[in-house]
Amino acid sequence: VKDPTLRADARRNRQAVLDAALELFRTDPSATVTQIAVAAGVGRVTLHGHFPTRTDLVLAVLDQALGRADRVLGDLDLDAAPAEALDRLVAATWTVLADGHAAVEAACRVLPADRVDALHQPVTDRLAGVVHRCVTGRVPEEDEEWLVVAVSALMHAAAGEVTAGRTTAGAAERRLRASVAVLVGVRPGG
Amino acid sequence: VKDPTLRADARRNRQAVLDAALELFRTDPSATVTQIAVAAGVGRVTLHGHFPTRTDLVLAVLDQALGRADRVLGDLDLDAAPAEALDRLVAATWTVLADGHAAVEAACRVLPADRVDALHQPVTDRLAGVVHRCVTGRVPEEDEEWLVVAVSALMHAAAGEVTAGRTTAGAAERRLRASVAVLVGVRPGG
Repeated sequence: VKDPTLRADARRNRQAVLDAALELFRTDPSATVTQIAVAAGVGRVTLHGHFPTRTDLVLAVLDQALGRADRVLGDLDLDAAPAEALDRLVAATWTVLADGHAAVEAACRVLPADRVDALHQPVTDRLAGVVHRCVTGRVPEEDEEWLVVAVSALMHAAAGEVTAGRTTAGAAERRLRASVAVLVGVRPGG
Repeated sequence: VKDPTLRADARRNRQAVLDAALELFRTDPSATVTQIAVAAGVGRVTLHGHFPTRTDLVLAVLDQALGRADRVLGDLDLDAAPAEALDRLVAATWTVLADGHAAVEAACRVLPADRVDALHQPVTDRLAGVVHRCVTGRVPEEDEEWLVVAVSALMHAAAGEVTAGRTTAGAAERRLRASVAVLVGVRPGG
């Protein structure tokens, strides 16, 4: 969350640190605060002024990535038939996820699971709404929650395959969208 | 891997450390070597004789859990029809996974992803064989690999829901088996 009282150069420094951290985490999940400060071109004192601990910085990186995801997803037109809305949402989430996945996963490793879950909540809520429209009247409500968890797990698994270099982003997206449609019991566009 | 030249008391100490670590990791993934030594009732020097670093110990805990899984799965009769074999394999893997999941996930957090993947390989290979029988001739070979990854991801997601207290093991297993059958395109027993 941006503090409007921060001076412009302080905001630029803060953003430079976040960008550098995300970039470094791609290749080295345990990049140190010192390495991040060097890559961002700011002093350690400046960095610590924005992020007192490494965990504060990791949380801010994750928060920014999820915030971006939420804005992209918020701009989607989901007024289509349920199956089409689900496919659009999965495709858009995929686009956001494939980009920052490695870094965000790295960040997740140092955070407690409940913090990670809480930060994901806005993204999860949107998915839950669309899954609900897809399965309502056909699947018991308590099984709907599992479908949301399962779709999320498939998205992260697909992103992990791309990160590990075992498949291309295009092939992963195609398989992911097909599997989600099968799992939720809809056909894309159907 | 057990060293047959270890004296009986050394083997007992080693096993006590592994058991204590698994148990502590359930509630505290970052339990220290000192805490583990105390819980196991062995001295720190003894513990370090078996596991020079904490990572060595974590690797041994994970290796033991996966070894147990592999033995349980190796005893399964998978000479049934493909769909039935898949359902049996998922149910058995689930039983093993639900028990040690929290601890193993905790351990995974400190290991590089490729080490974790390599240790999972025997379990993954077995699943890949059964999935192959289920979909052969119906799904392109390159998509088979994704189905194996997807089924693994669903199993871990279901175990995570139980660990987080959001569902019971019984309900999670029922949903997991149904979802796997749908995803792979088979009906249990069909």
